Amino acid sequence: MDAAEFRRRGKEMVDFVADYQENIEHRRVYPDVEPGYLRSMIPSEAPLEPESYEDVLRDVDRVIMPGVTHWLSPHFYAYYANSTSFPSILADLLSSGIGTIGFTWAANPACSELETVMLDWLGKMLQLPEDFLSETQGQGGGVIQGTASEATLMALLSARLKTVKCVQESDPQRSEADIISKLIAYTSEEAHSSVEKASIIGGVVIRMVPTDEHFSVRAETLEKMVAEDKATGYIPFFFCATLGTTPCCAFDKIDELGPICNAENIWMHIDAAYAGCAFICPEFRPLLNGVEFADSFSINPNKFLLVGFDCSAMWVKKSADLTRAFQMDPEYLKHEHQGSGLVKDYMHWGIPMARRFRSLKLWFVFRMYGLRGLQAFIRKHVELAKTFENLVRGDNNFEICAEVVMGLVCFRLKGSDELNKALLKQITRTGKIYLVPCKLRGRFVLRFVVCGRTTELRHIQEAWKHITELSSELLQNLFDHEGKEN
Amino acid sequence: MDAAEFRRRGKEMVDFVADYQENIEHRRVYPDVEPGYLRSMIPSEAPLEPESYEDVLRDVDRVIMPGVTHWLSPHFYAYYANSTSFPSILADLLSSGIGTIGFTWAANPACSELETVMLDWLGKMLQLPEDFLSETQGQGGGVIQGTASEATLMALLSARLKTVKCVQESDPQRSEADIISKLIAYTSEEAHSSVEKASIIGGVVIRMVPTDEHFSVRAETLEKMVAEDKATGYIPFFFCATLGTTPCCAFDKIDELGPICNAENIWMHIDAAYAGCAFICPEFRPLLNGVEFADSFSINPNKFLLVGFDCSAMWVKKSADLTRAFQMDPEYLKHEHQGSGLVKDYMHWGIPMARRFRSLKLWFVFRMYGLRGLQAFIRKHVELAKTFENLVRGDNNFEICAEVVMGLVCFRLKGSDELNKALLKQITRTGKIYLVPCKLRGRFVLRFVVCGRTTELRHIQEAWKHITELSSELLQNLFDHEGKEN
Repeated sequence: MDAAEFRRRGKEMVDFVADYQENIEHRRVYPDVEPGYLRSMIPSEAPLEPESYEDVLRDVDRVIMPGVTHWLSPHFYAYYANSTSFPSILADLLSSGIGTIGFTWAANPACSELETVMLDWLGKMLQLPEDFLSETQGQGGGVIQGTASEATLMALLSARLKTVKCVQESDPQRSEADIISKLIAYTSEEAHSSVEKASIIGGVVIRMVPTDEHFSVRAETLEKMVAEDKATGYIPFFFCATLGTTPCCAFDKIDELGPICNAENIWMHIDAAYAGCAFICPEFRPLLNGVEFADSFSINPNKFLLVGFDCSAMWVKKSADLTRAFQMDPEYLKHEHQGSGLVKDYMHWGIPMARRFRSLKLWFVFRMYGLRGLQAFIRKHVELAKTFENLVRGDNNFEICAEVVMGLVCFRLKGSDELNKALLKQITRTGKIYLVPCKLRGRFVLRFVVCGRTTELRHIQEAWKHITELSSELLQNLFDHEGKEN
Repeated sequence: MDAAEFRRRGKEMVDFVADYQENIEHRRVYPDVEPGYLRSMIPSEAPLEPESYEDVLRDVDRVIMPGVTHWLSPHFYAYYANSTSFPSILADLLSSGIGTIGFTWAANPACSELETVMLDWLGKMLQLPEDFLSETQGQGGGVIQGTASEATLMALLSARLKTVKCVQESDPQRSEADIISKLIAYTSEEAHSSVEKASIIGGVVIRMVPTDEHFSVRAETLEKMVAEDKATGYIPFFFCATLGTTPCCAFDKIDELGPICNAENIWMHIDAAYAGCAFICPEFRPLLNGVEFADSFSINPNKFLLVGFDCSAMWVKKSADLTRAFQMDPEYLKHEHQGSGLVKDYMHWGIPMARRFRSLKLWFVFRMYGLRGLQAFIRKHVELAKTFENLVRGDNNFEICAEVVMGLVCFRLKGSDELNKALLKQITRTGKIYLVPCKLRGRFVLRFVVCGRTTELRHIQEAWKHITELSSELLQNLFDHEGKEN
């Protein structure tokens, strides 16, 4: 395919994507396919000779689309929002077209520098303390990680190294392995599974901190655990706070937890993957109070800021904590401005060395929406969630299971877990809307997240109507069944 | 921006990308900017109100392009090839348009299943042993990782867990921390820096294995080190072999190393990021003989198979070794086919949980080029490298520093490191072509890699002419200077 054909096919693909998104709500949001459906639909080997583009595109409709869970559908209410937008898609197309791989500044100065400035822009939108910005020429700064999992892992690994060094300073005889075997990380029992995964990768013990009635970690609980662990010879070194937990969007009290972490030399990382995006709205910003105590902080613009996956923004107060941990400089990666303090070689800031030109997405989206446009987008989602909450509260068969703060509503049928599992099973089978469950205090709960860029009031109303219809059937069957038994 | 505007802007962007790539060779390949050039060119904060798309696009030309290192230019001879293509860009656009995030099978069955089948296709193109394929319904299979760094890290972490379990089976009292403190990983002194980084992340000791005169790790050297380490109570557990090292594209002798690893219960991972792609050509496939001894193997289709970054293909013989290491199943990620053995939840196969729909790129590229088209692409690069090698060999001022096997030529001016550094500095400053150096046996060497999809014979000839002109100037200056001194 030469450039001339790409012009033609590319424009067709643009129309294909536009058609797809314009008509997406008429598709079944959760696919009706069985495991292994795809293998039999295509050859078992790559072709020897080139095939025609028409054949490939035809197969996208024939093979791919029937098996797609349509994340961008307004009927998609699962996980947390995945909020891409047209400007983000354009920026990603540009990034693919430039085809750069940014690891050092020299590998693409524009890629490195735009990332630095975009993280400052976003940091200011969030009113982060200056310590986290690059423009102050201090020790802080931001970086794009692929996922929040990677941001958490980088924070934990950096904290591990820092603590080992610190312990060895006062006790030079103590081996790294011995110190690591005594390290303890902490996170909420409600935290995302990636925090536990990070601790396994890092080879350190993690303790799950119980939460209060609002599913929040409180100071006294952490304080007590830290004291216990210190008393038995362990070394508390890392606390991952969550702002907006995955199950029910709860918020740890970082303003009271932060001082404890600081006093105990515990690295505080804040994982605010979803909810953190909403802190660009002044009414939500108070939930971030206490960030000044944190060593690192991350949000996922690809969750709630109209930026396509993958894009996790991470800020650190002392970038050397990150870069020092894994800095390696083979000859083929050296360049003349390295170590000058004037440039950022982002390869030292994360797990993978090579990186795509992702800051373009942030730049396009911030400029095409403006801060006000992004705030309006977030407020609309929150409002729609409140609407859904009110619908649930208006129905005596249902209950709300956690405070609705942003775009997530946790609810369930009053009754057994089995009943709620049966309801979700019906919802998934019908495929009209898609949600996933969670567990809260051991109970099976349905999560309804307003996700789509194009989700409107009518979709919320339709969704609720659909849920109540299915639940009425279920309850009727149950009633009939019980009637028969009596 | 609504779908109608996206249709218009998207088509413009397709033309922008086509124009960029068609005219890229007239751009200065390495940018002429100073550190910090970008910050002063754009505002210090995001706009409050939306800006026009015209302004954004104008700034791509004004702000971004002057600072871009043009990886897709035919004048780009640095690092290793980054070989994207138009079909890959189209597939990525489709992926952005679908906007899916695949972590479990349920999150997007098509995304999970196409990945499995594409890794089988590629595995067959490489003539991998059946143990590594999914279609045999055995324990093996493939996965797309973001980068080779992540593939190596996943292999090392899986090996760590496997060894800990194995040691504890015979010695249940021994703590994980104690075992980890005794683990030793091995890799070539010529291996990529990401292997050492993986060992630091994993908290294990790594030893660099000396290479023979061809920069290859040999059996007797590894065998001796392993015996020494075992004698002093250490536990050899991981060997990362390299096929196609970064400095000079050397090949470890995996056919003789594999049996040792198998006998010693050492996990053998093969990092063939660049060179592995060429194994789809029968004439290069013998270099992969011995892969049957490996536990895991990875190549980067984004380096040499016309697939855009990021796309690192990894195969394992026992996928449970990977998935068991980090399997976590919170309620919100469960689905009905989980654990059925029929589906793959790729979130357990890597560091990040969420993943883009990257298998589309492989599918588009394999079908639009066909196996023969991809073989022809690789052979052309190798041939051009041979041409460059002959040009170097024909000039008595220069020497070839390592055998030219694929697209990389290592060469230098006969003379001091300083002389060669001065030459490279001139090349970089002039900005007409771009190369990076390496060190071989302590000597400073220039690397010339045929990278571009559009690199032709004339570009190679021009590049050589340019290099010899700059070196003649340098040598003349040196001669004049020495003349003055005498």
